Amino acid sequence: MVGVGIIGVGTVGQSVVSILERNRDIITARAGKEIRVLKGVVRDLSKDRGVAIPLTTNPYEVTDDPKIDIVVELMGGVEEPYRLVKRALEHKKAVVTANKALLAYHRYELSDLAGDLPFEFEASVAGGIPIIKALRDGLSANHIEALRGIMNGTCNYILTEMDQRGRPFDEVLQEAQRLGYAEADPSFDIDGYDAAHKLLILASIAYGIDAKPEEILVEGIRSIDRIDFEFAREFGYTIKLLAIAKRRGEQIELRVHPTLIKSREMIAKIDGVMNGISVIGDAVGETMFYGPGAGGDATASAVVSDIIEIARGGKCAPMLGYKKPLEEGFHLAPKELITSKYYLRLVVTDRPGILAKIASIFATMGISIESMLQRGGSQEAATLLLSTHRCLERDFQQALTTLKRQPFVQESPVMIRIED
Amino acid sequence: MVGVGIIGVGTVGQSVVSILERNRDIITARAGKEIRVLKGVVRDLSKDRGVAIPLTTNPYEVTDDPKIDIVVELMGGVEEPYRLVKRALEHKKAVVTANKALLAYHRYELSDLAGDLPFEFEASVAGGIPIIKALRDGLSANHIEALRGIMNGTCNYILTEMDQRGRPFDEVLQEAQRLGYAEADPSFDIDGYDAAHKLLILASIAYGIDAKPEEILVEGIRSIDRIDFEFAREFGYTIKLLAIAKRRGEQIELRVHPTLIKSREMIAKIDGVMNGISVIGDAVGETMFYGPGAGGDATASAVVSDIIEIARGGKCAPMLGYKKPLEEGFHLAPKELITSKYYLRLVVTDRPGILAKIASIFATMGISIESMLQRGGSQEAATLLLSTHRCLERDFQQALTTLKRQPFVQESPVMIRIED
Repeated sequence: MVGVGIIGVGTVGQSVVSILERNRDIITARAGKEIRVLKGVVRDLSKDRGVAIPLTTNPYEVTDDPKIDIVVELMGGVEEPYRLVKRALEHKKAVVTANKALLAYHRYELSDLAGDLPFEFEASVAGGIPIIKALRDGLSANHIEALRGIMNGTCNYILTEMDQRGRPFDEVLQEAQRLGYAEADPSFDIDGYDAAHKLLILASIAYGIDAKPEEILVEGIRSIDRIDFEFAREFGYTIKLLAIAKRRGEQIELRVHPTLIKSREMIAKIDGVMNGISVIGDAVGETMFYGPGAGGDATASAVVSDIIEIARGGKCAPMLGYKKPLEEGFHLAPKELITSKYYLRLVVTDRPGILAKIASIFATMGISIESMLQRGGSQEAATLLLSTHRCLERDFQQALTTLKRQPFVQESPVMIRIED
Repeated sequence: MVGVGIIGVGTVGQSVVSILERNRDIITARAGKEIRVLKGVVRDLSKDRGVAIPLTTNPYEVTDDPKIDIVVELMGGVEEPYRLVKRALEHKKAVVTANKALLAYHRYELSDLAGDLPFEFEASVAGGIPIIKALRDGLSANHIEALRGIMNGTCNYILTEMDQRGRPFDEVLQEAQRLGYAEADPSFDIDGYDAAHKLLILASIAYGIDAKPEEILVEGIRSIDRIDFEFAREFGYTIKLLAIAKRRGEQIELRVHPTLIKSREMIAKIDGVMNGISVIGDAVGETMFYGPGAGGDATASAVVSDIIEIARGGKCAPMLGYKKPLEEGFHLAPKELITSKYYLRLVVTDRPGILAKIASIFATMGISIESMLQRGGSQEAATLLLSTHRCLERDFQQALTTLKRQPFVQESPVMIRIED
């Protein structure tokens, strides 16, 4: 028998208990042992959790209990779970967590602390999609050339609705909040931080890179307008919030931002709240992993698969995929040295000579324009939608700064990077 | 150091040697040990393999060599590799194979023989897509409700070309042979056996079912015509060769056949030679795994990931995913008790009353028609394209037998099952 304790019995915790119960037959056969949840830790004992396990408010009754073999951390937050998970490891427990924020900040300390103790976290990235195991175990023969993920269902739902039904951002966001797809404070999702946490976890497995959320380029989807989808359609693109990792030699670009991506790409075909991660390996080529990125049962599916893996036989793969450090490591590329193609939406005074002026500002920075659409706006203003050839982020940003200073530019320009 | 011996140094074997060499840095870091190929077994020493490893024609120099820890079987066939893999296991070697035919026939004997020795076979299904590990490890918390795979790139290439360019079957097949996508004798691919072998391997992991290729329903794509795609498009479908596993209580349907499937489904969006497997778990919902199903480097990516897994720490998961048998096992559903919706193409004499006759033949079997298209053919004949509501395979087959006997039916009718 394997004893499990759960810290945090919310939606996911309840699903974990319920899946272990209703799939007991097949789970016991696969794990080779009965798995039993012995205790759950909650903040408030008066609330009914609908689960038949003993509850306590004292987390040490789980971290310190000799009958508990696996501690499952599902409480959320960063510093409190870090403290409790550390304590569980000190008591020689195996650990399973779904907590992306904990890992975005402390994965390397935890990997050191865990040592030979199993530490699994499949549910922390893309919910029910087994992308951690795919990257760590299934694609381990590969140098990862690129990774592009739709890993925030809220953003993907909003962008899909804007694209397919022409609805405005604010209206869709409010609806997503009503439907429970978006939080009352949606900024963690729609400003890209949620996807950034997940990207950092994947980047550690792909490249062994220890970066923090503050160090990488993160932009959200607030500035996207329906008109941007018009340009996208015209040139065969759609717009997705992508978390991107890219290798250029030993430099690794890590970034989260709305992205124009060709509609024919598999990752562009992922609609609504679904998640998907495209991984390009030097040996395998492109693979893609698709599924539900959130929801109690989908997330619990990943948590329980981790519990089964541990019950089967302890630690197989190292937590972050490396048994020892890379001899020649990879380095995070500075944000300003990212290269990309760019889309720009400009509202300008409708006068002759303006276009020449804009083109010359780009030309000064060595940036050439690839395509352009003009949309008449009010009497005095026109909307210009244009895209550039590939250039350095630094150069594009400098051109943008110059543009913003021009008297004919009427609103703050909106930029979206293009993946080609 | 981990010593590897390869039996069969063809395209995949050469790629395995080459990936281990060129990705040595990252593979050593991930595995924690240097992995070295010590010997390769070939049939003909005079042929240049372009690899810098010692070659022999004697397989026992690999199976019996105490310096070799992992035997990689890449020779193809069934009985000879079975004998050699057995011998390797008797010599306490870990085994990696890409051989789907070997596993379609002998996976349970091999699982028994392997015991605690690692036995990995990620490359045997869908090439570079890590679907074995996904199903065995990543989705292990789930009862698998259904699994639908595009696992034969040759068929998918042919059907995609017929669909998107309106080209006839024979022309595309010949082209596929020229391009090297199809064998000189294409029957193993286009008659569905290749996909059936892979389905049986997945079904063992999903359900613990020990079925042989001869026991399941297998139909190929030879009878598909361009006109079938017209019907498909009209009603929002496309046609794919799908390998399908479906659970109905303790009965498991296993079948490979051309299938009309809604174009909006993710699996329907997989075009050309690419592979993909959609897995529906009771907890996770639908997940999909996409990537290259063939090719030296893609297949070798899976083989090398297995080698790394073994080098990391021996056996983690049981070979077929079960540490012990299911208490209440699953059973293969008899072919005739499959239920499906059906599409039928009939060439009939163009006379009044024929349609009523056809409808009454179906009605007698309790089958109702859902939709119909008529296409004028020659002066005397009309082509009828119709689909039924869900019914038993047995009943549909009986109606079909009756239909074939009717004097107004001019050609052998063509049936395609519909997945809804």
